[in-house]
Amino acid sequence: MKPVGIAAVGLGRWANVLADAYTRSEKVKLISCFSRTAEKREKFGNRFHCENDATLEALLARKDVEMVLVTVPNDQHASVIEQCARAGKHIYVEKPISVSVDDAKRIDAVIKETGVKFLCGHSSRRLGALRKIKEMIDTKEIGEVSVIEAVFSNERGLELKKGNWRGDPVRTPAGPLTQLGIHQIDNLQFLLGPVKRVFNFGKPMYTEVDNITVNTTVLEFKNGKQAYLGTNWACPGVFSINVYGTKANLFYELDFSWWSNSDVTDKHSSLIKREFASTSDDPDNRILRDVKVDFPVIDHLRVEVEEVAEAIRNDGETEISAEASLRNLAVVLAAVKSVKEERIVEISEIMK
Amino acid sequence: MKPVGIAAVGLGRWANVLADAYTRSEKVKLISCFSRTAEKREKFGNRFHCENDATLEALLARKDVEMVLVTVPNDQHASVIEQCARAGKHIYVEKPISVSVDDAKRIDAVIKETGVKFLCGHSSRRLGALRKIKEMIDTKEIGEVSVIEAVFSNERGLELKKGNWRGDPVRTPAGPLTQLGIHQIDNLQFLLGPVKRVFNFGKPMYTEVDNITVNTTVLEFKNGKQAYLGTNWACPGVFSINVYGTKANLFYELDFSWWSNSDVTDKHSSLIKREFASTSDDPDNRILRDVKVDFPVIDHLRVEVEEVAEAIRNDGETEISAEASLRNLAVVLAAVKSVKEERIVEISEIMK
Repeated sequence: MKPVGIAAVGLGRWANVLADAYTRSEKVKLISCFSRTAEKREKFGNRFHCENDATLEALLARKDVEMVLVTVPNDQHASVIEQCARAGKHIYVEKPISVSVDDAKRIDAVIKETGVKFLCGHSSRRLGALRKIKEMIDTKEIGEVSVIEAVFSNERGLELKKGNWRGDPVRTPAGPLTQLGIHQIDNLQFLLGPVKRVFNFGKPMYTEVDNITVNTTVLEFKNGKQAYLGTNWACPGVFSINVYGTKANLFYELDFSWWSNSDVTDKHSSLIKREFASTSDDPDNRILRDVKVDFPVIDHLRVEVEEVAEAIRNDGETEISAEASLRNLAVVLAAVKSVKEERIVEISEIMK
Repeated sequence: MKPVGIAAVGLGRWANVLADAYTRSEKVKLISCFSRTAEKREKFGNRFHCENDATLEALLARKDVEMVLVTVPNDQHASVIEQCARAGKHIYVEKPISVSVDDAKRIDAVIKETGVKFLCGHSSRRLGALRKIKEMIDTKEIGEVSVIEAVFSNERGLELKKGNWRGDPVRTPAGPLTQLGIHQIDNLQFLLGPVKRVFNFGKPMYTEVDNITVNTTVLEFKNGKQAYLGTNWACPGVFSINVYGTKANLFYELDFSWWSNSDVTDKHSSLIKREFASTSDDPDNRILRDVKVDFPVIDHLRVEVEEVAEAIRNDGETEISAEASLRNLAVVLAAVKSVKEERIVEISEIMK
């Protein structure tokens, strides 16, 4: 397969992490990059041995660029994607797809209209451990799911300065819920199907900015199951999923120190199954056992971009559409509305 | 110190677990027991080498019985305690103090009126690990608390039969929230102070009974902090507390197989502190480290009864009053009302 030529638009920290992961792939090749700051694009070009373009128009006019990696700030996704898709470029966009339903719908519409391939970077469902958890739920190896708890938190709110877009409740609704929680929302909907209703007690804590930095969120799914989602920006990094089942529980955690090293994230992770080693009519005579569960090591950032590359070459499908990404965003926006109005919010209220 | 003579009233499974723990104490001595079923009281008397009385009146007339261990069903606590306290007997009652606010207030009133010593068996805050967590929060060793997650769940709802009092939403409101969650509610209020508001998505799942068996509950405290409380009766046993702090996180778990063996529960537990091993201006260069935290091994069921015994001999105080126990019950009842009315419920609505 001829490598798909890609260009990075938006050259912040995460574009560097992605480009680094892509150096491990033979299915994509970084061709060019663009940022309004000349210094940034030169530095990025030097680091990843690619060209750079002085304008987005110049970049989009290139024949060798087939796909654009969009990592501009969340509220600029829609306009950049519209421009790229209309130029016939396929799209990878960093999560969240947008921070407003209207923007997500604009993106969905232009993707459908132009027919370009699209993927939103909800990379964490690609992790080997997540695939294993999904399999163990679907095969009912753990019985029926009673409840799931998902947590993704780190310390970033403690050092946020006024003026940073992450501190702005419009550009980053509910702070860590948009930036971190969106991964777990995608995982939860991947594991349990669509969310129906949301409640959240979120509030700003230990931060200079006026945005929410600590959220305790509970979700009810269309299939009747419940989940807890914990996201805060005021503690050392945590990424964990606990699945409680009628036959067994699963406890999954990845070491957040290795989050950006997507080739080894799965190696720095642990998945434990808790089951009954022996049972008895007397509840005091039941013995529990924790067993390590093996799972494949998957380079989550590499496999997702390769999926788009293969879809481009073979006119195939990608796993995470603009519509699915909108359903993830809708959970965030419902949680924000829940805080504001101090009530349960239905996803249907957000989507209409 | 002369051992305090105690009598067990209500001789179910938990009375046996408590009496077994008390054989390890030199501060209390089991003197007699009572249950309406003659066979039960003879069996209990034989097992623990104590006498038995054919009526509660006969038991309460005994001079050698100074304290009564009340483990009758939750909705009978108030009437039994009133009778015992009026006979001048000190009281240990199993949690929850009651299943109605009126009953808890009746108990509080009779304890104050008669001046007998009282303790409600929220034993889990006595665990060595809980004392250590409290110390690490109070000394700010983990910084400020951002959020706490507490879980106490087991498989008991899967085998509940119609007619069992645990399946009755009046006798056991929200099922595992009353029977298991009350321990974590007590722990959470021990660690963070009084709860202000409650939301719950609880519902019956995987059970023959009409009671709630899976709860996802979120709490807001008077001091503004938030917590998640997970309680279900549809999975293998879990008892865990995660404390997320601005400087460090704590992950605590006890092996539920050893819950009833109170002398070794702490030995089958683990407390991990997550902190930064190294930090950096570049968030991708921060390394996390998990460190094992030592804590004393405390026989939680023995120390709580010994506290009452010492309070009796020295006219001292006990740690958990009827009022504090009512505040724990109020969180359960607020969570039940929240499910029914699909809204946030204030503790003040329940207490009035």
